[in-house]
Amino acid sequence: MNIAVAQSGGPTCAINSSLLGVLKEGLKHKEIKTVYGAINGIVGVINNDFADLTQAAKDFPDIDLMRQTPSSLLGSCRYKLPDPEKDPSAYETIAQNLEKNDIGAFFYIGGNDSMDTTNKLSAYMKKTGRNIKVIGVPKTVDNDLCETDHTPGFGSAAKYVATTVSEVARDSLVYSIPNVTIIEIMGRNAGWLAASACVARANGETAPHLIYLPEAEFSKAKFLADVNAALKQYLSVVVVVSEGIQLDGTVTEGKVDAFGHGALAGIGKELEAVVTSEIGCKCRAIELSVIQRCASHISSLTDIEESEEVGKAAVRAMLAGETGKMMAFKRIMNNPYTVAIEPVDACLVANNEKKFPLEWITEGGNNVKDDALAYFLPLVKGEQVLKTVNGLPAFYRTFNKQ
Amino acid sequence: MNIAVAQSGGPTCAINSSLLGVLKEGLKHKEIKTVYGAINGIVGVINNDFADLTQAAKDFPDIDLMRQTPSSLLGSCRYKLPDPEKDPSAYETIAQNLEKNDIGAFFYIGGNDSMDTTNKLSAYMKKTGRNIKVIGVPKTVDNDLCETDHTPGFGSAAKYVATTVSEVARDSLVYSIPNVTIIEIMGRNAGWLAASACVARANGETAPHLIYLPEAEFSKAKFLADVNAALKQYLSVVVVVSEGIQLDGTVTEGKVDAFGHGALAGIGKELEAVVTSEIGCKCRAIELSVIQRCASHISSLTDIEESEEVGKAAVRAMLAGETGKMMAFKRIMNNPYTVAIEPVDACLVANNEKKFPLEWITEGGNNVKDDALAYFLPLVKGEQVLKTVNGLPAFYRTFNKQ
Repeated sequence: MNIAVAQSGGPTCAINSSLLGVLKEGLKHKEIKTVYGAINGIVGVINNDFADLTQAAKDFPDIDLMRQTPSSLLGSCRYKLPDPEKDPSAYETIAQNLEKNDIGAFFYIGGNDSMDTTNKLSAYMKKTGRNIKVIGVPKTVDNDLCETDHTPGFGSAAKYVATTVSEVARDSLVYSIPNVTIIEIMGRNAGWLAASACVARANGETAPHLIYLPEAEFSKAKFLADVNAALKQYLSVVVVVSEGIQLDGTVTEGKVDAFGHGALAGIGKELEAVVTSEIGCKCRAIELSVIQRCASHISSLTDIEESEEVGKAAVRAMLAGETGKMMAFKRIMNNPYTVAIEPVDACLVANNEKKFPLEWITEGGNNVKDDALAYFLPLVKGEQVLKTVNGLPAFYRTFNKQ
Repeated sequence: MNIAVAQSGGPTCAINSSLLGVLKEGLKHKEIKTVYGAINGIVGVINNDFADLTQAAKDFPDIDLMRQTPSSLLGSCRYKLPDPEKDPSAYETIAQNLEKNDIGAFFYIGGNDSMDTTNKLSAYMKKTGRNIKVIGVPKTVDNDLCETDHTPGFGSAAKYVATTVSEVARDSLVYSIPNVTIIEIMGRNAGWLAASACVARANGETAPHLIYLPEAEFSKAKFLADVNAALKQYLSVVVVVSEGIQLDGTVTEGKVDAFGHGALAGIGKELEAVVTSEIGCKCRAIELSVIQRCASHISSLTDIEESEEVGKAAVRAMLAGETGKMMAFKRIMNNPYTVAIEPVDACLVANNEKKFPLEWITEGGNNVKDDALAYFLPLVKGEQVLKTVNGLPAFYRTFNKQ
């Protein structure tokens, strides 16, 4: 039997660690002959476009570089499978291409859309009497997947966000004039990543002074009152805003992706204009952009190791007979931080979002409580010792066409 | 005798290493009783506002944390001293406050404006018969100071830029559709920092495919032709632009700082609009903003060590009788990389800019040659082993009011 793995959705700096986990576990078991990588997600399976990862591991043996290589080495896609009742053709193509390559299991590393694919594909294989297992491996910097304590990729993004917020906060302190810095963070409709900026406070920084999440109510009037109050206490005020915040109900201008998600952007710049015109002090907005999902040079060791483990666990679960599942983290305890990895039904994760808990948001709706900090802290801990070449982190080779 | 040190201009992630160098060398010599830090640059001397750094080193002994603490621990200013012939009052206040505190030497860590202050103050002390030495310590991520091979702070900023460009380039490769990523880099009128993105190429990345510096001619038509040509070769094109680039001679909208420098910003977004409307492919602009000057978590060990050394050398030069000088780097050789630190006349650095060499720019004006890469490589090498607390880099305490 061979197995295949693919990566989907927006990349992270831990998604290749999960790929590495699938590859390493695949190489370990004699019943698995070859580990294939489908190029550009499920589209690669439809196009019968596979890379031979078992061979790659022989040709380029430093596969541990995948732990410090950002983005998706196999490429990605945002392809949504149609309803199999209405149009089974893509499913049949996928099944035939997997059979053609003697692939008995498919591992899909991705977010809630990929878990939809995992669920539908697994059901189709069963329905058509094929013994092809389909297992999902979670991934997203947004941390918005249901049925798991947290998601691979999130801890590293949170570490980058909290580190950068700490550094930018220090940078904003140098001049002796009142100023406001607004830092816009990713997360779609969930505030997890923006909230993680609170980790800066664990080291005694007063920043971020205000944190706005899409889960709480937001208004321009309240925002201005909050900033004015903070400026009375601090010369330099640091505000963290989630990209999902909307200014008085106005939907931020943006496009809609292949899954119908809005491409949110620009609230930071909008709020900069509000502060400049209504308060009049120096104000700058900073958008962390895609850097926050690909900054593998400051990844969380906890996240990188868990991401690899969850990939390995997926292969073991498949060998134990599972299908239609996503491997999930269950947090056992915080001291010492302990997690278990368990399979959950992919259908419970598909097309669903886990929002930031309302009970972790302060009453004023402008910051997060220490419960949130306790949740975040173990996820950002630990540093990778980077292999560098010419002063820059070394990367593994890519597999998709460029 | 006591000595005083201050920091000026935009912060970097190495400016506190130079502060540490002055402090450590000051603590070492018996003839120096106390090392003072003037708060918010020369303004702190005018206001007689000093922190006792000798005492701080006893109260908070982990002073080596300054090596990994970004921004200016003493605060900064953008105060320009008037012409002493026309208005000597500020000079006299400075001289009296230094005398009052028995300060026999003042060290000013900053850029070309600070070297103007160094030069004028030193001349005033001589003219008024005072034995107060004034020595400049270079600092700027822009690398645009004359009379020195490179500037403290530049190597770390370059390492962050090249690392981030490598990561973002990988991130841009995931989808199988043509796309353009435009990364805007600091540097005022000098292209050094933008050019340093070429270090990514040393590790086999094809990005950045195009690099535009203010030293070369730039036009919208040429830019579009370059991007279209690159899109024929690469699915994902990464363009690096210096903030100093102007679109067809149009001055980028911006404010002017206390030194008359334009606050340049926005060329990345302007070019994004050009690509979107004239080429029509997916395009995103990323502005590295202040992050590139304060990302101490990925500083260059070479830069951090040299920055500390140049601070120490300044104190030794003062003890040897120098004044009105800036400590400068002379590159002896590249293999092995060797530099000497020598005093140069601060007046030669003051109000002057060193541009990126035209002979290092390719004929098409859209990239840099390997000579530039050879110049940059030693400056970005080496990694600090960071002390972390709660998964984030630990910082030293600040001295200025917040």
